[in-house]
Parts: sequence; C-alpha cells; structure tokens
Amino acid sequence: MRAVRLHELGGPERLVVEDIPQPRPGHGEVLVRVRAAALNHRDLFITRGLYPQITLPVLLGSDGTGEIAALGEGVRGLEIGAHVIIDPMLGWGTDAQRRSSDATILGMPHPGTFAEYLSVPAENVYPKPRSLSTEEAAAIPLGGLTAYRALFTRGALRSGESVLIPGVGGGVQTFVLLFAKHAGARAIVTSSSEEKLERARALGADLTLNYAANPAWDKDVRKNGPIDLVVDSSGGETLAKALGTLRPGGRVVTYGGTHPEAAIRLFPLFWNELSILGSTMGSPRDFRAMLALFDQGLKPAVDCVFPLSEIVAAMHRMDEAAQFGKIVLSC
Amino acid sequence: MRAVRLHELGGPERLVVEDIPQPRPGHGEVLVRVRAAALNHRDLFITRGLYPQITLPVLLGSDGTGEIAALGEGVRGLEIGAHVIIDPMLGWGTDAQRRSSDATILGMPHPGTFAEYLSVPAENVYPKPRSLSTEEAAAIPLGGLTAYRALFTRGALRSGESVLIPGVGGGVQTFVLLFAKHAGARAIVTSSSEEKLERARALGADLTLNYAANPAWDKDVRKNGPIDLVVDSSGGETLAKALGTLRPGGRVVTYGGTHPEAAIRLFPLFWNELSILGSTMGSPRDFRAMLALFDQGLKPAVDCVFPLSEIVAAMHRMDEAAQFGKIVLSC
Repeated sequence: MRAVRLHELGGPERLVVEDIPQPRPGHGEVLVRVRAAALNHRDLFITRGLYPQITLPVLLGSDGTGEIAALGEGVRGLEIGAHVIIDPMLGWGTDAQRRSSDATILGMPHPGTFAEYLSVPAENVYPKPRSLSTEEAAAIPLGGLTAYRALFTRGALRSGESVLIPGVGGGVQTFVLLFAKHAGARAIVTSSSEEKLERARALGADLTLNYAANPAWDKDVRKNGPIDLVVDSSGGETLAKALGTLRPGGRVVTYGGTHPEAAIRLFPLFWNELSILGSTMGSPRDFRAMLALFDQGLKPAVDCVFPLSEIVAAMHRMDEAAQFGKIVLSC
Repeated sequence: MRAVRLHELGGPERLVVEDIPQPRPGHGEVLVRVRAAALNHRDLFITRGLYPQITLPVLLGSDGTGEIAALGEGVRGLEIGAHVIIDPMLGWGTDAQRRSSDATILGMPHPGTFAEYLSVPAENVYPKPRSLSTEEAAAIPLGGLTAYRALFTRGALRSGESVLIPGVGGGVQTFVLLFAKHAGARAIVTSSSEEKLERARALGADLTLNYAANPAWDKDVRKNGPIDLVVDSSGGETLAKALGTLRPGGRVVTYGGTHPEAAIRLFPLFWNELSILGSTMGSPRDFRAMLALFDQGLKPAVDCVFPLSEIVAAMHRMDEAAQFGKIVLSC
C-alpha cells in the first residue's frame, strides 16, 4: 500500500511516499481503508524533531476516516464496509478526568492515517457522522477532540459567556469558534490576517481583531466587556495579554505553546481568582460528545484537499499558517 | 481609646499609637471591645505603600477577637458581652464563588483591629471557638480564611493526597499545614530555617526540606512521589519549580506573590493538564467552614504575643520572617 513515512528528521521535506506492506488487524483491531486524512501541527513538529520520544521510521497522521476493510479476532458489533471515523487517542484508560500514562496519539509510535490502510483498536472507531462528507469527517478527530475538551471539559463554557480565541486560523481554534457559537457563547477572535477574520465572521465570530495591525488588541477586547474564558495555544505574550482581559473568576485553557513560556503576573491571578488550565487531546467521553455536535448539523472548516502524494506541499501550507481550518489529504 | 494608626507611608516605623475617639456602632453594626489582634503581611505592605488604593490616615488590623460592647440599631440575635471572632471580609456578597466588586478587607478603608474598640457589621461576627484562648482566636481570621479557601474551595484537597507547602513559616502556610494534616493529606513543607522545619514536623509535616541548604529541593520532592496540590504564595522560581513536582492532573493554588512574576513552561502545563488557580481571602461560607475546623479541636500556631504599644517591634519580627505562625497583639 502507499504510505507517507519519515525516515530521518529535518522537516516536512523529508517525508516520502512509498509502498510498504499492508498491515493486518491484530486481536481486537480493525483494518480501515483510509479515504481521507488530515494534518495536525503535531505531524510537522515530529518531522523537525520537536516532539518527545520520536521513533523512526514513522508513519504519521492522527486524523482519518474510511471504511472497515477487515476485522481482527475478537471484534464484535462492527461490520466490514461500515463508514467510520477514528478516535486518535489510543489507550486513554478508564478515568475520563486523566489519561493513562500509556496513552499515545495515533501516528507515532502507532502507524498513522497517512496511508491507504490502517489497523486500530476496534474501540477507537465510531460511525462517521452522516451529515459530513468524507473530507469533512477526516478534518475533525484530533482538532475537534482537543477543542471539545479545552472548551467544555476543562473550560466549563456556559451559554452566554464571552470566549476569546487568539489566532483563529489554526485547526483547533476554528473548532473552538464553531463549538463556542453552537453553545451560545459570544466569540472574540484574533488573527494577523484580514481574510481569516472575514472567514471567522462567516462562522459567527462576534468581534474580530487584527493583532498585527493593532498590538494593543487586548485593550480593545477589554473595551468590549470582560472575557469569561480564553482558549489559547499561542503562549508567550499572547497568553499574558489574554490573562488581562479576564473578569474576576475567569479561566484560561491552554492546549499548546507556540511560544513555549509565558511570564505570568501573580497579583491579578490571585486577586481576581483566575484559573490557568492545561488541556490536551481528550477522553473517549470527550470524543463521543464532540461527534454528537456534528450529528446535530455542525460543519467543520475545511481549508483544502491535497492528494496523499502532495503531502509535502500540504505540510508547507500548514507551516506557513496559510490555512483557515483543516488541511485534508485524499488517500 | 488607644489605636495604632498610619498617617504617612514609609514602613512600619511610621505606625503611631495614639488616642482617638471611640467609634459608635452604626445601623446593623456591633461595637467590639478588642482583646487581641494579629498581624498580616497586608499590614506591612500598606505601611510601605505596596497595596492598591491606600487611604490615609488608616487604622490597620484585619484579625481580631473580643466581646460585644454595644449593639447598633437593627441588630438582632447578638448579646452584649458575647465573645466573638471577626470575619475580616467585608461585603463579600451573595455568591460564594466570587466576591462582589465592593468587597474590602477589614483594616483599610474600614478601621481595623489594632485598637481597643472596633465597629463592624453584625454579620461579620461569629461566636469564638470555645476551645481557643483569646490569643489563639485572634490568630485565625484572615490567615485561616485564606488557607481554607486555597486548600479546599479552590484546591479541592482530598484525603490521601500529597500537598506541597513552600515556605511554611508564614501565617497562612502554617494554617495550610494544619488543615492539610487534619484532612488526611500528606504534607511536604520547605523553609530556609531548620527551626521552622522542626516546628512543622511537630505539627505533622511528613517531609521537610531546607531550600536554602538544597536549591534542588524540587528534585527531592519528586523522588518522594508526585504532588497532587501545591499551595504557594512565593511566586517566582519557587512556583516554577513547584509546577515540576506535580503529577498529571495536579493543581497549584497561588494566593500571593512575594516574587510578583513567574515564568511558566507551557508544555508540561498542557501536556500534564495541570491547573494554576488564583485564590484570595474567602467567602462567609469559607469562614464558617474554617471556624468549624477549630471547633473540632485544631489549635493555630501562635508565634508570640506583643502588647499593642509594641506594634513596631511586632511588625519588625514579621518583616524579618522570624516567626512561625501568627504574631498576636494584646489590645
């Protein structure tokens, strides 16, 4: 089968499309004929060696959808040909609050979705939401899961609250915007791109701010009323500024660190009883609840679709932050 | 009556003991004959101008106990001569989660407890726990309230968890130690003073570490098993190190910032789904729950008792961090 693999570190240019043996489903696993996959920053970070415990060679890809092609021993209740979407969180464990220390993300070390076929534990496949196309379904797993847990499980968003979403173009942040509006929240978004702000308005953003044109964007946020919840993956100065927009009792959920540190002023943190909450991926419960949102008619933002063979071009597009929403691969 | 007042900023030496008119209880207030008061760092910070919205002259003091000497109009259910302890949080409001924006702490702008008499709202006085002496009761209000909310309301401490308490000598941290042990937790404490560590062991500390003798104290903490909850008011590098001792899902509650900033590394924060939770003072519900602990037989750590006239010496002792537990004034 065709697959995208990384044999040596050095950036996305090192990814090669090659023929490798088709996997066989082990006990309790299903074989999926992948029809579409999607890119995550995790894939890019791994090509550059910016991820813990990289093992090579590796078949990348956390997001995927397709049909069940074969059932491993001991698998019940699933049928060959069923259209499925894959939960990329492997081995979360039984505690919805906290993942097991053995938990991993599909696409390293477990071979990922950038291939024609994939074996995964049967418990990780769910019926594809019917209202979504193959490309739309491929777009949602890791980003939707991360956004769901950040916004609801960790962030405890309530209807009527105001959510600040810095850097709205990336995959997860567009899901945060989508889910926040669906939940009845007010959404304030930032980007350095007028085009992305325009697209965010089309998805329902109530206030859009260009942080490149206006470095004091946080003052404009404050002018429009205090924020209840920030969902951030920028870190650095963005996180520090975002903290200053919160009402007393407000929360920041952080699920990433483009800038890997943040200098936090403690007086406003304790005086206003703010909370800074780390979040990453999500539990099987989060995944099911996230899928249910799409069963209710939500549509993910798909930026564009590349053939699997164009993986390097697709990765460059993500690296340049040119996309709005998810970049999908047709497999 | 005799009272301690500050007419100009410049440190604790500027405090003067003087005769001023005795207050009269207003509508809904009671007049308390203060028998003992206690010092907080807040008092010291105010003398140095290191506090928001300082108004002068000011009669300092947040902690106090004594007898009801007179009842203002409209006060029901309280009797003259009753021994009471004062909740120093004025105007918290009706939401236990979040204080009203009008809330203030007794001792500025409302005249405080460093005096023979004091008028406070009737809702702020509670029966003094019977098992405590006057000096012990005076020691608990603001420190006990802050520790209670940090440890239980914000920190959600559960029996069997491990709590790290950096800098155990200060008033609040000794309450944190006391309450954590009472709640069935394991307590790990740090100090730069062997004498304070010895006293912490006498209060039940399970592991004591001298951070001055051993700057890599956080490694020793980790060696002894991961921490569930840190309660900190140091900030700076202490907070950054403390974050590194947490198990996945662990929490830090911060209620102060001796070092007013902290550089937070984001990867461990989101990857391990840590929480950094600001906390300050506490609600009337927190105050009642805290008093109930002392009704169950807990005793606060009292460092020593000064006469009111020795306020400057008492403040110097706190300023030099020479104390273990609370410094009390006999009024």
